[in-house]
Amino acid sequence: MQHYVDRIVRDSKLPYYYQLYVILRHKIRRGEWQPGDMIPPESELVERYGVSRVTARQALEALANEGLIERHRGKGTFVAYPTIEQALTRIISFTEDMRQRGAVPSTRVLSASLVPAPEDIAGKLGIDPGDELVRLERLRLADGEPMTVEESYLVHQFCPGLLELDYRSGSLRELLEVRYDLRWVRAKQVIRAINAPRALAAILSVKPNAALLFIERVSFNQQDIPGEYLRLYHRGDRYSLYNELRG
Amino acid sequence: MQHYVDRIVRDSKLPYYYQLYVILRHKIRRGEWQPGDMIPPESELVERYGVSRVTARQALEALANEGLIERHRGKGTFVAYPTIEQALTRIISFTEDMRQRGAVPSTRVLSASLVPAPEDIAGKLGIDPGDELVRLERLRLADGEPMTVEESYLVHQFCPGLLELDYRSGSLRELLEVRYDLRWVRAKQVIRAINAPRALAAILSVKPNAALLFIERVSFNQQDIPGEYLRLYHRGDRYSLYNELRG
Repeated sequence: MQHYVDRIVRDSKLPYYYQLYVILRHKIRRGEWQPGDMIPPESELVERYGVSRVTARQALEALANEGLIERHRGKGTFVAYPTIEQALTRIISFTEDMRQRGAVPSTRVLSASLVPAPEDIAGKLGIDPGDELVRLERLRLADGEPMTVEESYLVHQFCPGLLELDYRSGSLRELLEVRYDLRWVRAKQVIRAINAPRALAAILSVKPNAALLFIERVSFNQQDIPGEYLRLYHRGDRYSLYNELRG
Repeated sequence: MQHYVDRIVRDSKLPYYYQLYVILRHKIRRGEWQPGDMIPPESELVERYGVSRVTARQALEALANEGLIERHRGKGTFVAYPTIEQALTRIISFTEDMRQRGAVPSTRVLSASLVPAPEDIAGKLGIDPGDELVRLERLRLADGEPMTVEESYLVHQFCPGLLELDYRSGSLRELLEVRYDLRWVRAKQVIRAINAPRALAAILSVKPNAALLFIERVSFNQQDIPGEYLRLYHRGDRYSLYNELRG
């Protein structure tokens, strides 16, 4: 279908389910249907587009496969918050990540302190054990619901006096850039699955041992010096990563 | 250090820990130390290279940070099986993946059957519910230990009679390519963390509810038609993904 039409073309070579899929996808892409919107039930699509129930279902499955819609049992089918590949290839802030998923981000600072670098983290950051780190533990919420605990260790030398600034409201990234000319140019990370320890489970409002997508990341500044060690504990039931692979 | 020397150069501008790190990394890279080998304890490095304990520790931390070594509490420090980025960006076989991690792969076929496509999988593959799929469930082992359960759904139309062939020994990929001219050119996947259901936990030799890195993948053939839907259940305690991000 070169041009968008809001109906099934009967003499097209394209299967009906595919045509319907393209129609619905278009509504999502151009924003007629927004993330979180409920989309019409199968029965309504059947009537509206003159297709069989199986055809409507397949079109919806294709959209679900693309991650464009999500079924919530007993509630209906909704336009999904896009889980985008960017989160896996670019250093984006939680705020950006959530906005791209169509969710409203918020943050609660759980703790903020200066700590001597433990040995393992010192090694990761190429500093001496005992060197000063800013430890910032934040709960990240999406649409008001816990999503991620972010445990950040910043080399204090790169952002002296950070804890005296207003790191609670607004973006830490911005603060680091504006006040310290500090930006993360690249990072490396390991992704794994872990069971939530009890304390973390409580903070994330999940059961103890619930599966978390755990990411450890070391970020490098403009001089390619490691400046931050980050632990991201994402709720397994809410957060996913998406990517494409080549053959 | 332009040229490799197996000692600390005292009048070098490079910190001792960094020199030691380069020395040890070299041993790993050239294969003098193989994945799984135990490396000398700190005390031995201290004596051998005439450095302080802190320096030796930092060199080891740098190696650990690179993912080149792993500590096993109470057992020692070992050359790690590399967790490489390829597993996240290319469609590689389990066999390749394990070899690149330095582990010996093996496979146990758990079940193999023709099944009618369930609705959700039919949608992902763009086929009709009830269409024939080859369902192949395999346990993948690394060094003889369970690592991954792989549940593959192949569109039977693309590989008719597959189950009559010898899919048990050798590579399924090769079989598909040689016998059916079927290759996966691209794929898309979603990565999340889940708790192991009881049956899966038993097969993977982990506790029920142990965290698994769960990957759902749809692979496309040379004509860009989806031909396989794959579920990968990786043990969270054994399998990790690694990647780099740009700022």
